[in-house]
Amino acid sequence: MTSATLLHLDSSISPAGSVSRALTARFAAVWRARHGAARLRHRDLAADPVPAVRAAYEALGRRAERKGVLSPDDVAALAETPDEEHEWALTRSLVEELRAATTVLLGAPMYNLTVSAGLKAWIDRISFPGAYVDAGTGERLLRDTRVVVVAARGGGYGPGTPREHLDFQVPYLRACFTGLGVAEDNLHIVTAELTRAADVPALNGLQPLAARSLARAEAAVDAMAAMVTDDR
Amino acid sequence: MTSATLLHLDSSISPAGSVSRALTARFAAVWRARHGAARLRHRDLAADPVPAVRAAYEALGRRAERKGVLSPDDVAALAETPDEEHEWALTRSLVEELRAATTVLLGAPMYNLTVSAGLKAWIDRISFPGAYVDAGTGERLLRDTRVVVVAARGGGYGPGTPREHLDFQVPYLRACFTGLGVAEDNLHIVTAELTRAADVPALNGLQPLAARSLARAEAAVDAMAAMVTDDR
Repeated sequence: MTSATLLHLDSSISPAGSVSRALTARFAAVWRARHGAARLRHRDLAADPVPAVRAAYEALGRRAERKGVLSPDDVAALAETPDEEHEWALTRSLVEELRAATTVLLGAPMYNLTVSAGLKAWIDRISFPGAYVDAGTGERLLRDTRVVVVAARGGGYGPGTPREHLDFQVPYLRACFTGLGVAEDNLHIVTAELTRAADVPALNGLQPLAARSLARAEAAVDAMAAMVTDDR
Repeated sequence: MTSATLLHLDSSISPAGSVSRALTARFAAVWRARHGAARLRHRDLAADPVPAVRAAYEALGRRAERKGVLSPDDVAALAETPDEEHEWALTRSLVEELRAATTVLLGAPMYNLTVSAGLKAWIDRISFPGAYVDAGTGERLLRDTRVVVVAARGGGYGPGTPREHLDFQVPYLRACFTGLGVAEDNLHIVTAELTRAADVPALNGLQPLAARSLARAEAAVDAMAAMVTDDR
């Protein structure tokens, strides 16, 4: 028996041929072999998008923030309109899903230098003020949550490359998850670079580098899967 | 008579009380007084969201990219499925709207350190490969387009502040528009900082700084509106 719970998120718009999806599936297969499927939740942020937050979400969030840290029930009690109740119902289930996960596995391709619109909609939805602080103890609820991000990008943005300063994907996701209270030591980012080397003419010469980057990403995912699987 | 065309985009989820909307409206009012409403297009990316790109968009984009620079008609001819035709129809109208603008005015609040999901959906949609290069001459079609970005953010992220490195909004939008071929000299970014100083308890002491930032933003918008209005 185990209480390990995996929240597996994918955000690539491509059902087939996606490097981030292939890598997260590789991780999830190892996890499933060890823990079974009962506590694995897969959420596809492209096929089944999270509705973008609306004005009532913001109104409720601001009211909650002025009160300090609140439990989900207390936030529900703050809702003043059917719109706010609706926004909180949409939000609460996603917040509780994230709070319940012992490991979060996120497939995040780079689109136009940063995360997809679908992943951003999830980030906006789950980042409700105070949602990851225990209202009783003040404890950071995601402190022990492991987060494994698989960041695929069509070009090269790694340290020392000419486009490093155009990477608004990996540094952004790092800032998001640490901002939610995930410990730096529990945040693992695997990158696969140059995933479009074969099909963008200007990148064709970089195919050997792309292959090496993918092999390294696969090895990193395997190592991470073994570690996460063993440590609970 | 004038051929000046303003594309006014807003992306705040708040119809009322939005600082970015107030500032873009201020700019648009000056423009409208000079040029009339006939060539002003207002697009609300929150109330009337652009559909997120789907796999057929990516498939068509990759095929187009392998061919080099194509005219919109040539891209249409490349579509192989009804899904691809649909994705291109959605995309083409937005691409042509952007190509036709002499000035783009964008209201962009920061949500969770970067642009809203709705603005990201527009960016993903309009960033079709080759869409801003003339297929005949190779000319950059947005080289002379003025872009005025009004970037509002709840906290302080300006140069020298402790959270400067967490600004994935202004540097990101700069990279996006220069990536589309907008000349650096034609890209004007106005920031309004600390817009939530009055309603986030931890920021309450910063209200005088917020008021000063807003006054500076209003002055910058007025100056920009006068310049853009005169230069065509």
